[in-house]
Amino acid sequence: MMMDNKFFREIGCNCWDASARIKEMDAFNLDVQVLSTVPVMFSYWAKPNDTLELSRFINDHIATIVQKHPKRFVGLGTLPIQDVDLACKELERVMKIGLHGVEIGSHINEWNLSAKELHPFFETAEKLGASIFVHPWEMMGQKRMPEYWLPWLVGMPAESSLAICSMIFGGIFEKFPDLRVAFAHGGGSFPATIGRIAHGFDVRPDLCAIDNNISPKKYLGKFYLDALVHDSNMLRYIVDLMGSDKIALGTDYPFPLGELAPGNLIENTFNSNLSIKQDLLSKSALNWLGLEAKRFM
Amino acid sequence: MMMDNKFFREIGCNCWDASARIKEMDAFNLDVQVLSTVPVMFSYWAKPNDTLELSRFINDHIATIVQKHPKRFVGLGTLPIQDVDLACKELERVMKIGLHGVEIGSHINEWNLSAKELHPFFETAEKLGASIFVHPWEMMGQKRMPEYWLPWLVGMPAESSLAICSMIFGGIFEKFPDLRVAFAHGGGSFPATIGRIAHGFDVRPDLCAIDNNISPKKYLGKFYLDALVHDSNMLRYIVDLMGSDKIALGTDYPFPLGELAPGNLIENTFNSNLSIKQDLLSKSALNWLGLEAKRFM
Repeated sequence: MMMDNKFFREIGCNCWDASARIKEMDAFNLDVQVLSTVPVMFSYWAKPNDTLELSRFINDHIATIVQKHPKRFVGLGTLPIQDVDLACKELERVMKIGLHGVEIGSHINEWNLSAKELHPFFETAEKLGASIFVHPWEMMGQKRMPEYWLPWLVGMPAESSLAICSMIFGGIFEKFPDLRVAFAHGGGSFPATIGRIAHGFDVRPDLCAIDNNISPKKYLGKFYLDALVHDSNMLRYIVDLMGSDKIALGTDYPFPLGELAPGNLIENTFNSNLSIKQDLLSKSALNWLGLEAKRFM
Repeated sequence: MMMDNKFFREIGCNCWDASARIKEMDAFNLDVQVLSTVPVMFSYWAKPNDTLELSRFINDHIATIVQKHPKRFVGLGTLPIQDVDLACKELERVMKIGLHGVEIGSHINEWNLSAKELHPFFETAEKLGASIFVHPWEMMGQKRMPEYWLPWLVGMPAESSLAICSMIFGGIFEKFPDLRVAFAHGGGSFPATIGRIAHGFDVRPDLCAIDNNISPKKYLGKFYLDALVHDSNMLRYIVDLMGSDKIALGTDYPFPLGELAPGNLIENTFNSNLSIKQDLLSKSALNWLGLEAKRFM
């Protein structure tokens, strides 16, 4: 991948080639993947019509793959969400061409996900039954962390917490209760800091409860997290916190910070507990997507 | 508190008045408090000699309180650490006037705690047996989080993780193995994301292992965290991860994000487990400070 003339990142053909992916899925006994683009392609920085053109290209490509392999892939689109009217129109098209929702960033340029400007997007997603996957990107503090991959190891978990807190405190889950939203990487630092967050809400309502006066703890179990936490104790903690029906296998595939043998952490952690494993390995994802297992059989 | 002519924050006399503090300590059956200044007083932004002057004033004040009430207070100083030579000299003085270490920020202006410029400070602290308390401040992403107190709820946990990761990846714990360092707020997001951090180290040593090729997991149990996580499950998780001898009651007193009835979370979480309670309520803090209980009896 090049940015203008500058090398950005080397990626393999499993980023775009369905047959390469299916081969690797088979190697790990994965039945179905949910496809979404890589955050660097969001291009929210560009002129909205240019982002729309790129989004349509990506969305059509994913739709083609899903149409060709309907039992192996489910697709999520991307939107020029910096222009909410354009985004809502493209979201309608996205759902018509056979995708099941969209992936968005943990913030949109200057807007956090609490921004009132985004209400029409959430309203449209709720109306259309479009699933939303929130992925961290443009990590806070990136410039202050030039070494040790820290924007990925420290910044990304903070971005996911920012996204979840913004949707809670901004009243998004309250205003649009039927939204089905999933957050990457086990929700980042949110689950571990819910005690601090809820305590903050309790002691400083003048700062925290300005747009929504319901405690953050009331939203536990109202959205989905993936299981990509790389640690059995932490996985158990988020399952306890959110309910096993709200945690779904997440892979970050095909990137190295993901789980290299997808499903291993869940297998090793919940070994003999078939009901939890079924939730984490398929049911939670199906519920988030509004799909039934028989579609893939 | 004013900054020049601008109102910054209203604080009560329990911020500076020993007798006010002792009254509140007695009300909650607290025997001993460790005193340190509030991070806004670090003043690392100022000319080093000006910061030194302010630091000496603060350190002398805390030393006076400790001298007057040696069974109720232990003191930590603050340093003009942006000038490491000055800081080392003041650290020697700090230890001579009866304080037991220093509090520093999660980063020092442009330096993370991995900065080679800070090595002489860590070397001096190790040599003098000075305990170090790292508190988050100048939170990453602050400008992008104007609402809902999010710099405190999202940014601070990220800052603590940045500080811990910087000391691990920068090889500080490796180079100065006898340092006794404690991090505030349960280590922020670090404990919950150790799986991700260690996995990142494993898959991208070219980025993570440039200054220290030992896995981050090896440092679990090599430093201290406070117990201020506001959640029993999370408290159990960090005790499992670090060992109960590395977790110490932390209060954030007298600020509202702290535990308003200090010790309650530990009491409620470990109810009948006297040995863990003893660690968290006194032994861990004594070990971190290099002190024995009899000093206070």
